Amino acid sequence: MKILVINCGSSSIKYKLYEMKNEEVLAQGGIEKVGMDGAFIKFKLPNGETKKVDAKVPSHTEGIKLMFDTLLSPEYGAIKSLDEISAAGHRIVAGGTYTESQIVDDALLEGWKPYMGLAPLHSPAHLKGYEAVKAQLPNLKQVFVFDTAFHQTMPPKAYFYALPYKYYKDYHIRRYGAHGTSHRYVTQRVGEMLGVDVTKKKIITCHIGNGASISAVMNGKCVDTSMGLTPLEGLMMGTRTGDIDSSAILTIMEKEGLNTHEANDLLNKKSGMKGFTGVSSDMREIAEAIADGNERAKIGLEMYCYRIKKYIGSYAAAMGGVDIILFTAGVGEHQWDVREMSLEGLEFLGVKLDHEKNREINGDEAVISTPDSPVTVCVVPTDEEVLIARDTLALL
Amino acid sequence: MKILVINCGSSSIKYKLYEMKNEEVLAQGGIEKVGMDGAFIKFKLPNGETKKVDAKVPSHTEGIKLMFDTLLSPEYGAIKSLDEISAAGHRIVAGGTYTESQIVDDALLEGWKPYMGLAPLHSPAHLKGYEAVKAQLPNLKQVFVFDTAFHQTMPPKAYFYALPYKYYKDYHIRRYGAHGTSHRYVTQRVGEMLGVDVTKKKIITCHIGNGASISAVMNGKCVDTSMGLTPLEGLMMGTRTGDIDSSAILTIMEKEGLNTHEANDLLNKKSGMKGFTGVSSDMREIAEAIADGNERAKIGLEMYCYRIKKYIGSYAAAMGGVDIILFTAGVGEHQWDVREMSLEGLEFLGVKLDHEKNREINGDEAVISTPDSPVTVCVVPTDEEVLIARDTLALL
Repeated sequence: MKILVINCGSSSIKYKLYEMKNEEVLAQGGIEKVGMDGAFIKFKLPNGETKKVDAKVPSHTEGIKLMFDTLLSPEYGAIKSLDEISAAGHRIVAGGTYTESQIVDDALLEGWKPYMGLAPLHSPAHLKGYEAVKAQLPNLKQVFVFDTAFHQTMPPKAYFYALPYKYYKDYHIRRYGAHGTSHRYVTQRVGEMLGVDVTKKKIITCHIGNGASISAVMNGKCVDTSMGLTPLEGLMMGTRTGDIDSSAILTIMEKEGLNTHEANDLLNKKSGMKGFTGVSSDMREIAEAIADGNERAKIGLEMYCYRIKKYIGSYAAAMGGVDIILFTAGVGEHQWDVREMSLEGLEFLGVKLDHEKNREINGDEAVISTPDSPVTVCVVPTDEEVLIARDTLALL
Repeated sequence: MKILVINCGSSSIKYKLYEMKNEEVLAQGGIEKVGMDGAFIKFKLPNGETKKVDAKVPSHTEGIKLMFDTLLSPEYGAIKSLDEISAAGHRIVAGGTYTESQIVDDALLEGWKPYMGLAPLHSPAHLKGYEAVKAQLPNLKQVFVFDTAFHQTMPPKAYFYALPYKYYKDYHIRRYGAHGTSHRYVTQRVGEMLGVDVTKKKIITCHIGNGASISAVMNGKCVDTSMGLTPLEGLMMGTRTGDIDSSAILTIMEKEGLNTHEANDLLNKKSGMKGFTGVSSDMREIAEAIADGNERAKIGLEMYCYRIKKYIGSYAAAMGGVDIILFTAGVGEHQWDVREMSLEGLEFLGVKLDHEKNREINGDEAVISTPDSPVTVCVVPTDEEVLIARDTLALL
C-alpha cells in the first residue's frame, strides 16, 4: 500500500511516497518558490542523485499537479497510475486542540478553521495543498497530522499563560508547542532502540534544528514543551529569539517605530543566532567564526547551549527527575559540541556523557552516555514523514 | 550614627531612619498618593501603633519635606534636628551596569542618566527624591543603592537576549534583573543563619512577593536571575504575566488594537494571578477562592508554583547542582502552601521538605528541610532597607 506524505509551506511543497509494506521511500522531492519567480522542483532519482527542474508554479494547485506529474513521469517516476496511491497525509503546523491525526472531511475542516490563524503563513498553504489533491483525486482519503497533537496532553498549569483569561476564550491564546510529530517519533523510537517501555520513563526530547524545541515526556505523554502559542518561544534558534522579556520587544517597537508585523518579523527572522552574532544561523558557520576568534559568535554558542541546559533542568524538575535525554534534528544529530556544552555540569542530575563517543556521532542513532550513567543520553535521528505515513495508514 | 533610607516610587515615598550602632529602626513611614488627591502619610509610633495623617502632597518635593517634618515633630518625631542624620541612602530600581552602591555626585548622575529609561516610572521619582533631600540638606551625603547591582556578576550567556546586537549597543537591551538588594541580603543572611560560607555554596534565592524573582547565586555571586530588562520577565506574579511567547502579546495588540503603552500596561498590571483568575493578586484571597471551589483559582495557584519549580530546576542546572534553596518576601515568607507545592517532586535534586515544620513557619527565619536533606531549604525574611543603610554607612 502506497501513501503520499505532503508538507505544504507558504511557498513550498515537500513530498515523500512510501510503500508501507516495508516503509520504503519510493520517491521524494520538493517544489520551492511556489507563487514566485524562479520556481523549481528538486527530487531524488532511484540512484540517489538529485535532479532539479525549473518550472512555472504560480500556485499550490500547479505545484501539486507538478508533483503528481513527476511521480508519474516515465523517465523519473515511481508509479504508473495515481490510483496506486492509497491515501495522502498532510503535515499541519497548527492543530489547536486536536489530540490525534484526523481524516479530512467537511466537519474536520470546519472544526479546524478557528485555529488556522495560529499559523497564519502555514495554514492557508496546508488547505490549498489539500484542495489541490482533492481536485485531482476526489476520492482519495486524506489525513491531517497535527504538529501540535502530541503536546495536547500538557496539563493546564503548563499550557496557560498568566494573561487575562478572556484572551484564551476569545483568541485561543495558550501554549500549543510545535514539532510534536518529531517529539512523538523520537519518543517511540528511543523506546525501541533501548528496549525500554517509554510509558514508564521520564524523557527529555531535544529537537534542535534551525527551529528548536524541548519537550518533557513523562510516561509516554508530553507534559511540557518550550514552544508556545507559536514556534517563537523557548530556545534560542537560528533566527528566532526564543524566550525574552516581552517589554524588550515593546521597547524596540517604540524606539524604532515598528508595527506588530515588523516586530514579529524581527523576532522570528532577524534574531536568534544569526541576529545576535551577525554571522549566520548555521551552526557550522558559527563554529568557523569561533575558530577565527569571533568573540560574539562564542557568546552566541554559549547562550544557545546554556538555554538548552536550563530547559533540561527545568523539565527534570517538572517530571521529578529524568531517565533519558535525547537529541534530534539537524543540530542535535550532527553537532557534538552543542550536545557536550548543553550537558556540561549536569552530573548532579545523573548525566555521565561518554565524551569520545559523543564526538564520533554525526547523524547516527547512538547512546552517548557511559554504561554506568544513571541518565541515558542518546542521539535519535527524527523522521516526521514516516510517522505521518503511519498515522495515515492507521486511519484507513 | 543615624542613616535615613528612602524609597521613592512614582507616587509614593517610603522611609526608615536607622541608628547604625545597633541597626535599630528609630522611625519609619510612608507617604502615598504623591501628586494625587487623597495623599496621606502613615508612620509607626514608638509604641508600635500606626498613625495616618491626611496631607497635601502635590510633588515629591513636598513629600520629602513632610517626611522631614514628621521626623522632627515634637509629638511623633525621632530626632530634634536634621543635623542628626549622617547620610541618606536611596533605593534605585534600574542601575544599568553599576556593580556597587555609589555616593551621588554630578558624575554619578551623568553616568546613570542613560539607564533611567529602563525604569521609566521609578527613575524620575528617584531623582526627584534625591533633589528634594539635597534642596533641604545640601551638604548631606546621599547614596544610590542599585537594585540591579547584585546581578551584574551574571555572565554574558545569561544576560544577553538573542536579539540583533545593535539593540544592546543602542538601547542597552539586556537582562538586568531586579530585587537585587533583597537577593543579596538573604544570601548574606542565610550564611550567618546556617553558619556556612556562602562563597562556597550554590544557592537558589526565591524572592516571592507581589513581584517575584529567582536568582542563582553561586559562590556568593549572582549567575542568573529571572527578571529581565524589566521586572516583567520570569515568574508569574500578582499582576505581571512573567514568561510568555512574545507573539502572544503581538497577537493581542493586533486583535484589540492596543499600542505599546497599553500592551505594557496589560502585561504588567492586568495579568498574572489577578488577570488569569479574575479573583485577586493576593495569595490569601486566592486560597479562599480555591476553598470555595473556584477551579480557575486552583489552576492559577498550580501555574504559580509550577513556574517556581521549573526555575529551581533550571538554576540547579545552571550551577551544576544546588546546596540551599531559600524563600523570602511576602508570599515566600508567609505562604507554606506555595513553598510546599513549588518543592513537590524535587526529591531527585536532594530536597527533603519537613512538611510539618514548613506549615508552621509564617514569617520567621527557619530551616524547613529535614536534618538529613542534602539540600537545605530555608525561610529567610528579607530586609532590603537595612542593607541600603549598611551600604550607605560603608561609603561614608
